[in-house]
Amino acid sequence: MPDTPPSPRTRLRRMHEKAAYDRATIHAVLDAMPLAHIGHLVQGAPVVTPTLQWRVDERVYWHGSSASRMIKAALAGPVCLTVSIVDAMVLARSGLEHSVNYRAVMAFGQPQALTDPAEKESALKAMMEQLFPGRWQELRPITAQELKATAVLSLPLSEASAKIDDGPPADPAEDIAHPVWAGTLPLATTPGTPRPAPDLAAALAADPPPYLTAFRWG
Amino acid sequence: MPDTPPSPRTRLRRMHEKAAYDRATIHAVLDAMPLAHIGHLVQGAPVVTPTLQWRVDERVYWHGSSASRMIKAALAGPVCLTVSIVDAMVLARSGLEHSVNYRAVMAFGQPQALTDPAEKESALKAMMEQLFPGRWQELRPITAQELKATAVLSLPLSEASAKIDDGPPADPAEDIAHPVWAGTLPLATTPGTPRPAPDLAAALAADPPPYLTAFRWG
Repeated sequence: MPDTPPSPRTRLRRMHEKAAYDRATIHAVLDAMPLAHIGHLVQGAPVVTPTLQWRVDERVYWHGSSASRMIKAALAGPVCLTVSIVDAMVLARSGLEHSVNYRAVMAFGQPQALTDPAEKESALKAMMEQLFPGRWQELRPITAQELKATAVLSLPLSEASAKIDDGPPADPAEDIAHPVWAGTLPLATTPGTPRPAPDLAAALAADPPPYLTAFRWG
Repeated sequence: MPDTPPSPRTRLRRMHEKAAYDRATIHAVLDAMPLAHIGHLVQGAPVVTPTLQWRVDERVYWHGSSASRMIKAALAGPVCLTVSIVDAMVLARSGLEHSVNYRAVMAFGQPQALTDPAEKESALKAMMEQLFPGRWQELRPITAQELKATAVLSLPLSEASAKIDDGPPADPAEDIAHPVWAGTLPLATTPGTPRPAPDLAAALAADPPPYLTAFRWG
C-alpha cells in the first residue's frame, strides 16, 4: 500500500513498485474497480465514505442524494478519491517485509455537480453501461423527479496518480535461507450465482442476462 | 453505501439497512476485512490512503514507516478509518433503485502511536496472527532497528459505527411488472493457489502452510 513497511530492506521491494502518472494506467485501475473511498472535509475533519465511481474520458464521477451531507461536503471543499485493488498478500521471511500487491489510484481536487438534466442522465447511463452493458435501455426509464433528487459529481483526473506493486517478496539475501514458506497468495473477486428477486417473473428469473456472468470487480 | 441513491422510493430499501453501534457488529466487520481506507488531513485537505488494519479488543491498529508523511499526518490530527466489504450488486427495475449490499465500519478520532517496543512487537504479532495464525513464530525474528523504524498507530473504537445493507432490490409496487431481470449478484473474494517465491527451497514450496488456504478476505 502507499504506506507499507519501513526499513532499508524495502529498497529491494521498491524496485517492483512504481508510481505512474500515465493516463492508460490510471484509467485501467479506475475502470477495473467501481468501489472508491472518498475523503471529505466535514467541520474540519476528514470523513471517508465508500461509493461507486465511474470514469468518462478524463473525469471520474460518482452520485448520491442531492440532500446528502457528503455531497454537500464534496461541493464545499476539496476531496481525495482513492480506488484500491488488492491482488495478493505477499509473505516474506520477516514480518516487516510482508506486504500486499495492489493497484491504486488517488485523485485530488474540487468536485463539481452536473446541473443539466440531460448531462446527468447521460452520466448515469454511462455508469450503468460500465457495470452492466446493455441494461440501461431495459430499465424502467428515469423520471425528472428522480434526476432532480440525484446529485452527480465529477472530478477531473488532472491531479491523479496510480501506484502498482507486483511481484514476489523481496527478502534481503541473508534472510532467504530462513525456513519458512514465502511467496504470494493471490486474491480475486468473482461474481457468484445471480439470485433473482423473490417477486421476479419466472420467465425472467429463468433467463439471467449475460452481463451478470461477465461482471468484473477488480 | 452510506451515500446511496435518493428519492422517496428508497424508503422500502432503507428497511433492510441498519446502522449499528453494538460492539459485536463493529468487531465482526473489522475482523472480516483487513483493508482500511484512512482519511488524514494534509495541509488542510483530505488524503485517503489504503492500508491494512487489525483489531485488538476496543482498538483498531495500523502501521507504517516512522518517517511516512501519512503517519505524521495521523498523529497531528483526527482521522477517519473506513472499512467496507461489498457483498453483492443489487439490480432493481429502475436505475436509481440499484445499490449494493455491503458491510462497513467508520471509526473517528485522534490516533496515538505506541512507544514501548514490547507493546509494538505485541501489536505487530497480533496483526500477523489475525492474517496467518501461527506464522509469527516461524518468521525470522524482528530486530530492534526494524521495530524502531515502524510506527504502530491505534484508535479507540469509541466513535465507531457499522452499517449493513442486505436483501433483494426494493422496487416500488408499480415497477415490479417492468420486464427486466432484478435481483442480486453476490461477490466474494477467495484466495487462489499460493505462488512460492522463486528463491524458496523446494521442500518448503512443496508444503504450503494451512493458513494460506484458510485465509479469508471479507
